[in-house]
Amino acid sequence: MSATRTTAHELSLIDRYWRAANYLSVGQIYLLDNPLLRDPLKPEHIKPRLLGHWGTTPGLNFIYAHMNRIIREQDANVIYICGPGHGGPGMVANTYLEGTYSEIYPDISESAQGMQKLFKQFSFPGGIPSHAAPETPGSIHEGGELGYALMHAYGAAFDNPDLLVACVIGDGEAETGPLAASWHSNKFLDPVRDGAVLPILHLNGYKIAGPTLLGRTSDEDLKKLFEGYGYEPFFVEGHDPEPMHRQMAETLDVVVARIRTIQKEARDGTTVDGVPRWPMIVLRSPKGWTGPKEVDGKRVEGFWRAHQVPVSNCRGDEGHRKILDDWMRSYDPEDLFDADGRLKQELRDLAPRGERRMGANPHANGGLLRKELVTPAIRDYQVRIEKRGAAMVQSTEILGHYLRDTMTLNADQANFRIFGPDETESNRLGSLFEVTDRVWMEKIEPYDVHLSRNGRVMEVLSEHLCQGWLEGYLLTGRHGLFSCYEAFIHIIDSMFNQHAKWLKVSRELEWRKPISSLNYLLTSHVWRQDHNGFSHQDPGFVDLVANKRADTVRVYLPPDANTLLWVGDHCLKTWDRVNVIVAGKQPEPQWLNMDEAIAHCEIGAGIWDWAGTEGDAVAPDVVMACAGDVPTMETLAAVMVLREAIPELKIRVVNVVDLMALQSTDQHPHGLSDEDFDRMFTTDRPVIFAYHGYPYLIHRLTYKRTNHRNIHVRGFIEEGTTTTPFDMTVLNELDRFHLAIEAIERIPGLKDKVVHVLEALRGKLQEHRHYVGVHGEDMPEIQNWTWSDPV
Amino acid sequence: MSATRTTAHELSLIDRYWRAANYLSVGQIYLLDNPLLRDPLKPEHIKPRLLGHWGTTPGLNFIYAHMNRIIREQDANVIYICGPGHGGPGMVANTYLEGTYSEIYPDISESAQGMQKLFKQFSFPGGIPSHAAPETPGSIHEGGELGYALMHAYGAAFDNPDLLVACVIGDGEAETGPLAASWHSNKFLDPVRDGAVLPILHLNGYKIAGPTLLGRTSDEDLKKLFEGYGYEPFFVEGHDPEPMHRQMAETLDVVVARIRTIQKEARDGTTVDGVPRWPMIVLRSPKGWTGPKEVDGKRVEGFWRAHQVPVSNCRGDEGHRKILDDWMRSYDPEDLFDADGRLKQELRDLAPRGERRMGANPHANGGLLRKELVTPAIRDYQVRIEKRGAAMVQSTEILGHYLRDTMTLNADQANFRIFGPDETESNRLGSLFEVTDRVWMEKIEPYDVHLSRNGRVMEVLSEHLCQGWLEGYLLTGRHGLFSCYEAFIHIIDSMFNQHAKWLKVSRELEWRKPISSLNYLLTSHVWRQDHNGFSHQDPGFVDLVANKRADTVRVYLPPDANTLLWVGDHCLKTWDRVNVIVAGKQPEPQWLNMDEAIAHCEIGAGIWDWAGTEGDAVAPDVVMACAGDVPTMETLAAVMVLREAIPELKIRVVNVVDLMALQSTDQHPHGLSDEDFDRMFTTDRPVIFAYHGYPYLIHRLTYKRTNHRNIHVRGFIEEGTTTTPFDMTVLNELDRFHLAIEAIERIPGLKDKVVHVLEALRGKLQEHRHYVGVHGEDMPEIQNWTWSDPV
Repeated sequence: MSATRTTAHELSLIDRYWRAANYLSVGQIYLLDNPLLRDPLKPEHIKPRLLGHWGTTPGLNFIYAHMNRIIREQDANVIYICGPGHGGPGMVANTYLEGTYSEIYPDISESAQGMQKLFKQFSFPGGIPSHAAPETPGSIHEGGELGYALMHAYGAAFDNPDLLVACVIGDGEAETGPLAASWHSNKFLDPVRDGAVLPILHLNGYKIAGPTLLGRTSDEDLKKLFEGYGYEPFFVEGHDPEPMHRQMAETLDVVVARIRTIQKEARDGTTVDGVPRWPMIVLRSPKGWTGPKEVDGKRVEGFWRAHQVPVSNCRGDEGHRKILDDWMRSYDPEDLFDADGRLKQELRDLAPRGERRMGANPHANGGLLRKELVTPAIRDYQVRIEKRGAAMVQSTEILGHYLRDTMTLNADQANFRIFGPDETESNRLGSLFEVTDRVWMEKIEPYDVHLSRNGRVMEVLSEHLCQGWLEGYLLTGRHGLFSCYEAFIHIIDSMFNQHAKWLKVSRELEWRKPISSLNYLLTSHVWRQDHNGFSHQDPGFVDLVANKRADTVRVYLPPDANTLLWVGDHCLKTWDRVNVIVAGKQPEPQWLNMDEAIAHCEIGAGIWDWAGTEGDAVAPDVVMACAGDVPTMETLAAVMVLREAIPELKIRVVNVVDLMALQSTDQHPHGLSDEDFDRMFTTDRPVIFAYHGYPYLIHRLTYKRTNHRNIHVRGFIEEGTTTTPFDMTVLNELDRFHLAIEAIERIPGLKDKVVHVLEALRGKLQEHRHYVGVHGEDMPEIQNWTWSDPV
Repeated sequence: MSATRTTAHELSLIDRYWRAANYLSVGQIYLLDNPLLRDPLKPEHIKPRLLGHWGTTPGLNFIYAHMNRIIREQDANVIYICGPGHGGPGMVANTYLEGTYSEIYPDISESAQGMQKLFKQFSFPGGIPSHAAPETPGSIHEGGELGYALMHAYGAAFDNPDLLVACVIGDGEAETGPLAASWHSNKFLDPVRDGAVLPILHLNGYKIAGPTLLGRTSDEDLKKLFEGYGYEPFFVEGHDPEPMHRQMAETLDVVVARIRTIQKEARDGTTVDGVPRWPMIVLRSPKGWTGPKEVDGKRVEGFWRAHQVPVSNCRGDEGHRKILDDWMRSYDPEDLFDADGRLKQELRDLAPRGERRMGANPHANGGLLRKELVTPAIRDYQVRIEKRGAAMVQSTEILGHYLRDTMTLNADQANFRIFGPDETESNRLGSLFEVTDRVWMEKIEPYDVHLSRNGRVMEVLSEHLCQGWLEGYLLTGRHGLFSCYEAFIHIIDSMFNQHAKWLKVSRELEWRKPISSLNYLLTSHVWRQDHNGFSHQDPGFVDLVANKRADTVRVYLPPDANTLLWVGDHCLKTWDRVNVIVAGKQPEPQWLNMDEAIAHCEIGAGIWDWAGTEGDAVAPDVVMACAGDVPTMETLAAVMVLREAIPELKIRVVNVVDLMALQSTDQHPHGLSDEDFDRMFTTDRPVIFAYHGYPYLIHRLTYKRTNHRNIHVRGFIEEGTTTTPFDMTVLNELDRFHLAIEAIERIPGLKDKVVHVLEALRGKLQEHRHYVGVHGEDMPEIQNWTWSDPV
């Protein structure tokens, strides 16, 4: 390794800066008052509840200080992803030292008084959380749930050629599955078009109560592991600060130069194909570095006991208070802060300036950089409806055309990507490949199709990576869509949860600017899993989504292509939300022309007059409601069955596109008013509701409505296997015959009059079962069924 | 590599066996009739809907045939985990060839007629699913959702010293996060006590529509990657069957010998500490190997087009039918099957015998081997209740004592383990470490605590691994408990889904014997996340669980230690279920003595007479209901507030332990009858329900009940941060004051009479907010609150 350009003097300044960050970190965990330790430490200076995580913090501070030097010397454009986000005090300390914190929160000024407030607010009611969070300047990553740091880093780097993302990964986090897969992201990063990610694996050796796997792995094996992943690993190891500063500075000089070389050669066109050997750093430093070595005779520094609060009860225990006092004074605050409590000038000079400060880099507040997505007019893609239900169209294919042109329109902005686990083509979005490719940095064979180094479709068989990359991409101000098999979106349930939480908190912070919504297109859904079976049948993601705050989530179930076009277009234009779109990819009948689709979607639910038979009756005998493409088709088929069998029946058809319309206005901004809901669903007639997912959700959304007791929901009741499309609906009693039977049974006084009809319908179900068992396909009358309008 | 012991003749027999499996695999995908191709292939012989996955299947068959040789030659005890479970035809074909299939399903006999049924039933309505599934003999693993093969394999190997688990991992699956982390499972496998896992990474190069990451990685990098993970990789690569058979046989001889050496040395005590270098195999073979090379001029074999059905529409397209005909005849069925359609004798001899057949190995039908867990009497651990609510006890710590002794009682059986992501101690189950340790195969330092090579606590910072190992352990007939932070259990939502699906189907198969339930202890829950914050606050897992079939899932919210003891003991004794227990780890008041706890839990919900003030009134003015430890405490505190402020109020307290008791008996076997429910919750009085999680769930569970309109639920409404315990309840309006206010407002005619009480309660909330903002801890009256019985 070449000698660093950094002088001993510079390193000693960096060491002091690091000590200042460590001092402020400890202060946040422990102190209510006496921030500069001008007075002897007394019980009342100490917080009654000691909360937070010290163990990882000095390492985070060490990296931050060294990255500051790189930024200053090279005018580098760097953001910092703090995987061990529970080291929140470190992130807060550093953004305070560089001045960002006080600019955003003027009340936390650069003074003794400000420092006291800085300390007090940490993990304090009404203050800030203990983790890096939306409240933390410079952060796009909450470290609460571990596993997503590196995918966020790559997501941020895509299409940001000048950006360098320094990503710290704790050795705890490195044990998670999502993180283990994230290392492969290097195979999707184009050195020409994208920025760089510098992974820094921070091995402090311990989790909460035991050693870490990688912490106990030899350097030899680690080197092989990361070379096997395709990186060039560099090691920085030790505990004595002075040589550690020198090693870190030298290593950073080398690795940043490597990154620049890779980029330059790629951009000059002098490299051959293949995945560049990007550098990464393995930093081994003691857990709780510079903290108490022992407490009560037990090992703390360099052990898991340093994980949270290394010395407890400093209010009540004088000995412990002495340990804290010694510890904090070991950083020599008078050497760091002036009489007013401001960082001394020679240390202030170590921080970058303006937007180069990692806490102030606009990429970490992506809304600042977000450019509106340019979208084409949806009418240009509409399906013409000459006869309702006649055209059999793959709705997602139509959306694919719209997405293709959206991709083209934003090619110059380079701020739109599609993410999915190897399912773009399977989900019928293949027309995207007319204008772009799958991104692929490994070898490309002559017979490969739609692969290139600069494609804008991101496919990897990891829903975690798709989600994490997209989150990083959105959080840095871009746009995207995640298309996924419906059942397997549950793989990222917890990531959705965390992102929704991030959005909820961000929306409450004026300085965080809106980012584009996270849009899911869930297709290959429960009702059409022809090649697979029960394992691929789960519509429950929307139940999870519906738990989140109403201002953050939307769920759409467009019944055909034109409604899907409206919904897709709408979702791509929203911000600070999670939008879930569930739509089929198989050929299905089309119902609404574009004008009708727009009007229907804008309200979110509506009566389909053309489908019902109520005419000008005062009220219908029954409301046949539906949400989802297959339930809509079965409902309309049931209406035809009913009107043919019992012509005098007054049937109303209601279709719901926007699931949140079912809630009341006080529960959700998209909710129908009670009056509108009652007008639509009546106050006393039976409602047979065919729903795409688990039936409970409809009850949960409507339990406050007047007519709730008469709403009878059919949906997925966990019956499934590899079978025919119609048989899936029969197994779950969502088919036309079951719906018609239930309607007859629920209309007061009807069933005894039409016993023959009920018998005929039950006969149809038997006939179906027999037919599919023999032929392995649905009866011709089912396969060839088409809608006809009532006369 | 040493020359194989296998002769050319033996290899040619293996090749024929492989061809037989391939023939049967293609037949399942395509044929309705004419199974032995005795007649020219006609349209009516071909299925109308062609479903299934060919691409991975020949590789699966290749491995199966070669493992058969090893089993026969060495009398080895082997099960086969088929990661690419969508290669279901291969698993079915092999278990049919070895005779297992016909033993379990006599209708599918070893004859031409049986073969015709075998073909027809595949992916056919009323038949079997297209994936390896519970219906597949020898399988403990459905390959529908990818990522879990290797963790299942390790779970099966733990505590099964004689077992060798051959685990095939597809290169698609290898891109997932959970699989990427699974390789580290070698650090938890004790060669003395546990069996062996032989990972076979099957690189056929492609996913659905593109290449795979590892398929395009060089052997050099793959070697480093797996050496870095701690394995010794062996490569078997090619496409010409003859040399491939030889390579595979040679390699298997070497790797199985390596495994035996590792085991022998460890068991003889001649090895030093550290992770043994277990062998693994990288098998590169063409996707769709031996299938059509091209169809319609497009590359198929060795490309992603071979993924599902390589040649479509063989009914309607004569040219395609010819391709199919040629393809199937290329296996030369007359060389494989006799005139009756039975496999020829010299090939039958290649299969192992009896329980050594991988389809018949009892480890893959774990219920056959399951021994009852020995449990101590829960009364031995009971908390004595001298004064209700007076003792402050950590409920999970009490359960920990019970678990410790359960561990001891089953030490000889070696069939009980505890799994958790580094949280056993944090979750107060630390007394387990009095009798066992965390298992750890890497280096152990002198200052480490509770680490050993043969511990029975499995800690890794991957919820995926905890879940997957436990599933594998249970599916092979053992017992376990997964203790997890409540919020992060969402990480394995989709794994829970898949396991629940597995159980649902298994229960319907008489030959699959019951396995122990999958038990979750969710603690460090939403209401007590003192060191963390919003990211750690999510009680929604039970919402997901409640979507599953009633006969498969249970959710328990024990309010104190004695109820937790009953629930924990009960869950460990059940089978074929998923039990979720949510319980706090912080010191909390204790309510019920053991007799009361048993009576209460057996019904699942009950009136707490001692807490209410209704006396012998005909009906109470209000029902204060609660589920969960913190809601129970706040409810009782609210009752005290109300009875002191308005002594004449008749208050009933109802506590719910078993959430499913809220459903009606027709929805859940644990449901209360409508009569019992009405008696408990009244038919017309206001019910203020304080619930641990998202409030909607209570509505969803009770929407059919008479008094549902009067049930007002308070729960987690997605408000959270790092704050005091009581402040968390206030933020979500679940605290005693909000509950009391709501009770007053809901009791008809009351609120106008007690305006001063409402004002005082609202004043208390203000006082709280002010106090925590200044002091950072809860008001003394909150911290020191204790229950007193009404006089």
